Amino acid sequence: MNILNPKRPIADLKELRALTGDENGAQRVAFTPMWVKTRAWLKQKLSGLPVEMHTDAAGNFWATLRGESDKCLLIGGHMDSVPNGGWLDGCLNVITGVEILRRINTQYNGKPPVTVRLVDWADEEGARFGKSLFGSSACSGNLDMDEARGLVDKQGITLPDALRNVGIDFERVKDCGEELHNADAYLELHIEQGPVLLDLDLPLGAVLGTFGVERHAITFHGQAAHSGSTPMNRRKDAFLAAAKMSLESYKIAERSGQGVCTIGSCTTKPGIVTSVVEECRITLDQRHLDAEKLSEMLYDAKATSERFAKEGNVRVTWERLWQIAPRPFDDELIALCDESIRETHSKSHRMPSGPLHDAAEVAASGVPTVMMFVQSLHGISHNKIEDTKEEHLELCVTAFDKLAEKTMKWILKRER
Amino acid sequence: MNILNPKRPIADLKELRALTGDENGAQRVAFTPMWVKTRAWLKQKLSGLPVEMHTDAAGNFWATLRGESDKCLLIGGHMDSVPNGGWLDGCLNVITGVEILRRINTQYNGKPPVTVRLVDWADEEGARFGKSLFGSSACSGNLDMDEARGLVDKQGITLPDALRNVGIDFERVKDCGEELHNADAYLELHIEQGPVLLDLDLPLGAVLGTFGVERHAITFHGQAAHSGSTPMNRRKDAFLAAAKMSLESYKIAERSGQGVCTIGSCTTKPGIVTSVVEECRITLDQRHLDAEKLSEMLYDAKATSERFAKEGNVRVTWERLWQIAPRPFDDELIALCDESIRETHSKSHRMPSGPLHDAAEVAASGVPTVMMFVQSLHGISHNKIEDTKEEHLELCVTAFDKLAEKTMKWILKRER
Repeated sequence: MNILNPKRPIADLKELRALTGDENGAQRVAFTPMWVKTRAWLKQKLSGLPVEMHTDAAGNFWATLRGESDKCLLIGGHMDSVPNGGWLDGCLNVITGVEILRRINTQYNGKPPVTVRLVDWADEEGARFGKSLFGSSACSGNLDMDEARGLVDKQGITLPDALRNVGIDFERVKDCGEELHNADAYLELHIEQGPVLLDLDLPLGAVLGTFGVERHAITFHGQAAHSGSTPMNRRKDAFLAAAKMSLESYKIAERSGQGVCTIGSCTTKPGIVTSVVEECRITLDQRHLDAEKLSEMLYDAKATSERFAKEGNVRVTWERLWQIAPRPFDDELIALCDESIRETHSKSHRMPSGPLHDAAEVAASGVPTVMMFVQSLHGISHNKIEDTKEEHLELCVTAFDKLAEKTMKWILKRER
Repeated sequence: MNILNPKRPIADLKELRALTGDENGAQRVAFTPMWVKTRAWLKQKLSGLPVEMHTDAAGNFWATLRGESDKCLLIGGHMDSVPNGGWLDGCLNVITGVEILRRINTQYNGKPPVTVRLVDWADEEGARFGKSLFGSSACSGNLDMDEARGLVDKQGITLPDALRNVGIDFERVKDCGEELHNADAYLELHIEQGPVLLDLDLPLGAVLGTFGVERHAITFHGQAAHSGSTPMNRRKDAFLAAAKMSLESYKIAERSGQGVCTIGSCTTKPGIVTSVVEECRITLDQRHLDAEKLSEMLYDAKATSERFAKEGNVRVTWERLWQIAPRPFDDELIALCDESIRETHSKSHRMPSGPLHDAAEVAASGVPTVMMFVQSLHGISHNKIEDTKEEHLELCVTAFDKLAEKTMKWILKRER
């Protein structure tokens, strides 16, 4: 009896793409009319199921299939996209969740052993206001209200005003925290957004958690000097010291094991062809799944920057731009995820997630959490060329459904 | 009989500073009212001497002391400054030239063995229109008329219009080339604008010529990728390749002997903290006194950039921004310059000039040329803190005057 139809979410995804995308990609930016239209489409997809639907105080949308127990399995994702986004990022998990609700509803005749809830988080991407994980961080309680209150989009509209336009009272958004009270597990499926599974030629991976991030601006302060009249050994070249950090960042990442380091931006002053660089500012983004290793990476980078500054007779200053702690997922759920992948396909792979996901917020709130990744064809996301082979999409629907089933049983056995 | 007074030019320089500078430095930008005022002051300084004065077709000012012979010694400099410039850059040589004219006039009773001419070149700095050596390049014939015609200042005024305001017809500026017809030697004194003499603890140096310059933009083309999800070994990091060029530029300079390399600017795209750099553009300025060595430096940099591109799985493209050939000075005049310095002070030092000077244009036109440098206290110029010890200023006036005398004798002995 094939009551799960892995082809159906793919057809739904294509329908959604036709409805909410254009030649530049997906256009489902949160709190816009297109996003509202997407929500209406989602509700229509769920309308044949005996689910209770409501939107919480932060604009997250919930569909609840009541079970024998009030113990609760959450399946989550986000329908919003970046502008010109990919067709799978975020909506793959929500639409797969709809198919899993269909299967569970059929299999358990409308009454599964535990309550199953599907959530579409509001504004995961933060594309409009520059702050991601809005809905899930409101729910976890981590949202910084003072910071969020001051967010403004490119048109000068504040986040509170944008929320008001879609019927949300900003000052009450954290009331949605109650949605997690009965949550016993949270599952999220996502396209990888990187090339790891592609390189391993594997369709699916079990995610160990989301990387912690240390994000800093490093400025080297040297001295401007004439490019013709200043001997090489007399220079205080801020760019030279910054350049050494690039090579070193690869070594720091290597020493850290599974961490990554990125210098994403470099600016030079005075920045003219005839002068030694007086001031060079680079940004450094460091990520690791292990908090201690992440802190070692940062220490390493700071020590090296001081050494390069000294070598080059320049000064260095650091400014923290942002940080977030690693969010390791639940060991038992990671094992169930692995098992589900192995039962669907020959081999699984355990990997950290570089990008953040709503799952990081749910995990931070204490709900046992795991994510499953499906291979990304070009290792690229946030781009219209984002894609996954259809056979891999079918595999992920099947494996994620197995994980949901296993997790329901795990919830039942588990003491709260 | 002390008919040269080395203290007088220093007093004149101080008078000029009071007249044409403010708390931010010298303000004698070419073709401005302050520059016109400076010229009037210079004429007044020369008014007691039996010199013919005129301004040529390019706005260069000439003061001619007729001699027994129409063989001709030129002494040159420039009264114009950058905005907020130093008190010595350019005017030191013109004002020292006035003192030398005084000495020669007294010593030879108004009729020296050869004709001696002092020239104040127009717009050496190019501060207003971004193109240096205007008057001397018009005189040498090297001025690119099409390029110069299109030059516009920050107020949108074209160079031809600015020239018209001070009575110069742009289309006729090259007529001033005739001024060089009888020139047998050209001498220029200048503050070093670098720290070489300072480091050697020497007041004076004989200049071997001006560096040739190769000025290029180098762009590395990689691929943007998410800073969290892209493993280090999968990156096509344009910044990494560019950063390697910084370290290498010091090695290239070292291998070249006396050359210098400067990476003065670095820009990154997309230039955001969460993305590997897709495109990184740096500027490279290479200088050497030897044309062959300069061309080797360029070849070296190109080969290395290709290697770094290959190593990093990125592409590299080059764009020439500007170039000028080295202008070696006259060997016999360099020897006379050395001799004059040794007779004034214990030790001389031979050195190339990194910055360009009007002497480069005169040398290019075929007139035997040499420059003398005097120590710069902070190794800095184009800045109000530019300075030279007064004892060194006195030494340079004395040594440069000796050089003028020796050069007159050299001209007399020499076949044209």
